[in-house]
Amino acid sequence: MTDVPPNPTAPVGPHRILLGLNTFGDVGEHADGSPQLHAKVLRNLLEQAELADAVGLHAFGVGEHHRKDYAVSAPEVFLAAAAARTTRIRLGSAVTVLSSDDPIRVFQRFATVDALSNGRAEVMLGRGSFIESFPLFGLDLADYEVLFEEKLELFDKVRAQKPVHWDGRTRPALAGLSVYPPLEHHLLPTWIGVGGTPESVLRCAQYGYPIIFAIIGGQPRAFRPLVDLYREAMAKYGHPMQQVATHSPGHVAATDEQAREELFPHWLKLRNKLGAERGWGPAGRGEFDALCAPEGALYVGSPETVARKIVELKQNLGVDRFDFKYSNGPLPHSAMMRSIELLGTQVAPRVAELLAENDRPAN
Amino acid sequence: MTDVPPNPTAPVGPHRILLGLNTFGDVGEHADGSPQLHAKVLRNLLEQAELADAVGLHAFGVGEHHRKDYAVSAPEVFLAAAAARTTRIRLGSAVTVLSSDDPIRVFQRFATVDALSNGRAEVMLGRGSFIESFPLFGLDLADYEVLFEEKLELFDKVRAQKPVHWDGRTRPALAGLSVYPPLEHHLLPTWIGVGGTPESVLRCAQYGYPIIFAIIGGQPRAFRPLVDLYREAMAKYGHPMQQVATHSPGHVAATDEQAREELFPHWLKLRNKLGAERGWGPAGRGEFDALCAPEGALYVGSPETVARKIVELKQNLGVDRFDFKYSNGPLPHSAMMRSIELLGTQVAPRVAELLAENDRPAN
Repeated sequence: MTDVPPNPTAPVGPHRILLGLNTFGDVGEHADGSPQLHAKVLRNLLEQAELADAVGLHAFGVGEHHRKDYAVSAPEVFLAAAAARTTRIRLGSAVTVLSSDDPIRVFQRFATVDALSNGRAEVMLGRGSFIESFPLFGLDLADYEVLFEEKLELFDKVRAQKPVHWDGRTRPALAGLSVYPPLEHHLLPTWIGVGGTPESVLRCAQYGYPIIFAIIGGQPRAFRPLVDLYREAMAKYGHPMQQVATHSPGHVAATDEQAREELFPHWLKLRNKLGAERGWGPAGRGEFDALCAPEGALYVGSPETVARKIVELKQNLGVDRFDFKYSNGPLPHSAMMRSIELLGTQVAPRVAELLAENDRPAN
Repeated sequence: MTDVPPNPTAPVGPHRILLGLNTFGDVGEHADGSPQLHAKVLRNLLEQAELADAVGLHAFGVGEHHRKDYAVSAPEVFLAAAAARTTRIRLGSAVTVLSSDDPIRVFQRFATVDALSNGRAEVMLGRGSFIESFPLFGLDLADYEVLFEEKLELFDKVRAQKPVHWDGRTRPALAGLSVYPPLEHHLLPTWIGVGGTPESVLRCAQYGYPIIFAIIGGQPRAFRPLVDLYREAMAKYGHPMQQVATHSPGHVAATDEQAREELFPHWLKLRNKLGAERGWGPAGRGEFDALCAPEGALYVGSPETVARKIVELKQNLGVDRFDFKYSNGPLPHSAMMRSIELLGTQVAPRVAELLAENDRPAN
């Protein structure tokens, strides 16, 4: 039999931070204005995952969308291909829109990725900030809350790998059926992805799952009360402590200026496209520069700048893991590959060095 | 842009037959009686797919089940891993139980496999001969027919890659939504897997899809009227002709005796397990030997024996493709690997040779 590996979502301690990557597989245009092919974007993603593995990053996650502008609608299908081409990196979703999926199918797909990756699968469950999956799968947006609540309850029972007894109003009941294939090692590592509401934080703690906060605007340090709330609630519920992570967009290049200039046009286009859909006012360079500043939520700059910002995050929020969303608007594949390489080969070791330095005076 | 490849399901002509492989990922016991791990079976499957690709076989298909005794519940997740490890072989399901799945999700997952495999995905849709997915996904067996009919109609509309307008009773309506990612080349190759009823044959022809008959008992030549019915119905509906295939179990070893002795205990165990579930009487060596005889539905023997039987199939039914189900009960991984290797390196060239010989006198 295979050795059981240690719990992959146990906290990592005060002087360490795990670095992961996220992408939604943004689909854009070539330099000549012709549209990119979704299929080509998916093949580029596979190269990005291979590079992330090769440079030693901790995790690679793909987010589920059902829109023309993102290539990933079936995260686990992509992750299985990544499993076959990588050896160390953890493979996950960021996030799986559980509300509009079937918890049994989600478990089966991730269990299959887990088998094919020798125990490297993880799932991040969320309600999704996009809502296009509701009409597509015939769901009513009025059930936004109850769908997530009930499906999370069912998923948690399936994950326990015992015959499932469940009853609710959003899906027919289950009376003692088992779900296959089972996992080989521990329970499937399962995160809850949250925006910034106390209810979401408490729901995550109720299940005892690790938590990941999406911080895509404002200041990361403003999430301190929610991080504290999670840790207090986990203790109150009597769960063993789990990892706390944040996810934010970023881009790394040789210099701060290069990173900002490369990213800005893509960031602006994406920001204003989403803004038009969601009723935000148009953004400009001022907003971008504020987000890139030391207090902002964008991790953009040279390896040194980004490393210092990640260390700051560790100091402010005490997080165990930081997931860097390296696709922010359809940046060229080559620029994303360089960003990933710099993150693994320069940012990660520099973060470790800075955390070790910070450690010394305290001793 | 990429060149558009020729239609992969066009008929191959009278002197050729394509050879594919199928498996359900049977989970059994080790020689010492301890249970196999589902995860290990999935990893073995990946090696089997790699070998099938290396020896030049045409297609590799995995069947969807939701039972303890089969490891594949999420075919496309497995197929994506196989896509990342192979270069030529077509990758499909055998079958996808469409009745209990969502046609939009099925399309999305196969479209993702298609992208990752550079256009090698194919789906076989069926109602499934096992029914465990109905209670698991909260469906009523009384809807067995209407679920398949309606979901096939919806799948066909999604496959056309235009905004989908659909209305039915087994799923909420769709009013003009698009489904992503789109395919790069042709329409997704889509087969209908049928047992042996004229209704199923006519339904397949109505959609103009290629057809595959599961022939797991009796005599393959008895399917001649159904093959004729398919071709007549395709012509009547005005569809361009598509491939006709059959799927049957088999095992190849160095000699006829070795192949039969290796397979028999596993065949018997599986046959009697399914028989107990379905109310068949117990089987024995007599039934097995009759199925292995030249007229029977089992393709078991030396490369020469199996090649001659496949040529006979071509002559009797005029099929374009034969899918060999190489896992029949949990045969040892090593025996299945040898069977695959012999099929690719000895059976396939011998079949080509025999078909060429048959061709000569006719000229």
